[in-house]
Amino acid sequence: MNIAIVGVGLIGGSIGIRLKETKFCSKVVGVEKNESNQKKALQLNLVDEIQTLDEALASCKVLVLTIPVDAIMKILPGLLDKVTDQVIIDMGSTKSNILNLIQDHPNRGRYIAAHPMAGTEYSGPEAAIPNLFKDKMMVYVEAFKTDEDAFEIADAITDQLEMKSSFMNAEEHDMHTAYVSHISHLTSFALALTVLEKEKSQGRIFELAGSGFQSTVRLAKSSPDMWTPIFKQNRANVLEVLEEHIKQLQHIYDKIEQEDYDAVHKWIKKSNKIKRIIK
Amino acid sequence: MNIAIVGVGLIGGSIGIRLKETKFCSKVVGVEKNESNQKKALQLNLVDEIQTLDEALASCKVLVLTIPVDAIMKILPGLLDKVTDQVIIDMGSTKSNILNLIQDHPNRGRYIAAHPMAGTEYSGPEAAIPNLFKDKMMVYVEAFKTDEDAFEIADAITDQLEMKSSFMNAEEHDMHTAYVSHISHLTSFALALTVLEKEKSQGRIFELAGSGFQSTVRLAKSSPDMWTPIFKQNRANVLEVLEEHIKQLQHIYDKIEQEDYDAVHKWIKKSNKIKRIIK
Repeated sequence: MNIAIVGVGLIGGSIGIRLKETKFCSKVVGVEKNESNQKKALQLNLVDEIQTLDEALASCKVLVLTIPVDAIMKILPGLLDKVTDQVIIDMGSTKSNILNLIQDHPNRGRYIAAHPMAGTEYSGPEAAIPNLFKDKMMVYVEAFKTDEDAFEIADAITDQLEMKSSFMNAEEHDMHTAYVSHISHLTSFALALTVLEKEKSQGRIFELAGSGFQSTVRLAKSSPDMWTPIFKQNRANVLEVLEEHIKQLQHIYDKIEQEDYDAVHKWIKKSNKIKRIIK
Repeated sequence: MNIAIVGVGLIGGSIGIRLKETKFCSKVVGVEKNESNQKKALQLNLVDEIQTLDEALASCKVLVLTIPVDAIMKILPGLLDKVTDQVIIDMGSTKSNILNLIQDHPNRGRYIAAHPMAGTEYSGPEAAIPNLFKDKMMVYVEAFKTDEDAFEIADAITDQLEMKSSFMNAEEHDMHTAYVSHISHLTSFALALTVLEKEKSQGRIFELAGSGFQSTVRLAKSSPDMWTPIFKQNRANVLEVLEEHIKQLQHIYDKIEQEDYDAVHKWIKKSNKIKRIIK
């Protein structure tokens, strides 16, 4: 069996590394528009060869889509028009719009919506690393609409990546990811800009930046090409969580402004409950 | 030479570990109000013995203050009244108010304001770890007002901790820390609360939390007893940076709301400039 990775960046490249390592398939094919990334993907041994999308559809049993979510929206309907028994695995970060788009497609059963909850703040083929997925969660969305044999192949790949799995509907998935992933990126981008703006008048400001700053701001290195489409596709949920987050910040602004430090103490103590969630 | 650590928690305890390791002083004395923490500090071998503040002042050449900043404000004037040739090193996170408070004290020269830019989200004696300070920055504030011999002792301790050092005035220090430390904690607390609130209606929400969420939210485990006084002592700077941060978030809220994704892309790309600052 040949497997094609469509978009050989952080996610796609890391899948390539793992599938080549486990020899799960005869060949890992890369589909990649960007010429410089094609070369890097081959040099870094992330894939065995580069093909066009049509060539990959003809030569591979599985196509794994690891391109930005708006690009998936664009190519998926055309891909499904052409599939016969191939399996199309969509690894994008938002699901409602894409599932609505192809819900009535006659080949809907060959498609599976999966979201690997793994990543780093880096992008491109150079960002691909071994074991990116190990012990992380693969979320299947509306998996019951996928043909049994197609699901089994997708799940076998999840096993190869050494991931756990979970099932959700699209609304649940998109809302939950807004809360535990998309908002983290927004706060990081905003934090980076807040400090970068101040740096213009205060050159030495980063001299004091410690590990706390680094950890809250590291996601601000994430790619705008990947994240702009996510905010677009998940607009309603992202706006909801962003509104709530701004309210929290405005609340604590008011309490500090009013010098109500009992309220500040209580607010921090309440937030400490996150201890039971994260290690 | 004996050295007293006043407040044997994360910072004080980690200093104790290091000073005992390097045998820099004959004895490390712990001054600690909380009885359970006294026991832990001895059990964990962070200090050699526990004394009262007055005993420590009589038996030690150096007193290192590693208690919350409001507690430092409270005890420092009385301590300075009693010192003769001892050295008082204040390791708190804010400096303007404390320096104003003791600026005209006849024993001002025995005091040095120092801020080790190191820490974790944990607190208490159990949080103390070896090498917490290694290669981190010790910031001296208004060090020129400290007696030469007192500064030399403080700087020798900084060397023992294997830290680099930097000099600032109080306004600069408090403003910079608001930008690269205090705001990170506020965003983390707010992010934790945003998601914890939502969890009440959506139990499975943390199932998808990955490493990005963990890193932006980990500071929300930080102690309210330590952080409330920091926000109080650094109120003006904290409010300034919080206002700017909320503006950044409101700006991106508006752009997503208006579906102006070119602006979203540009905003993210601008924030990516943080790459040249953090590894």
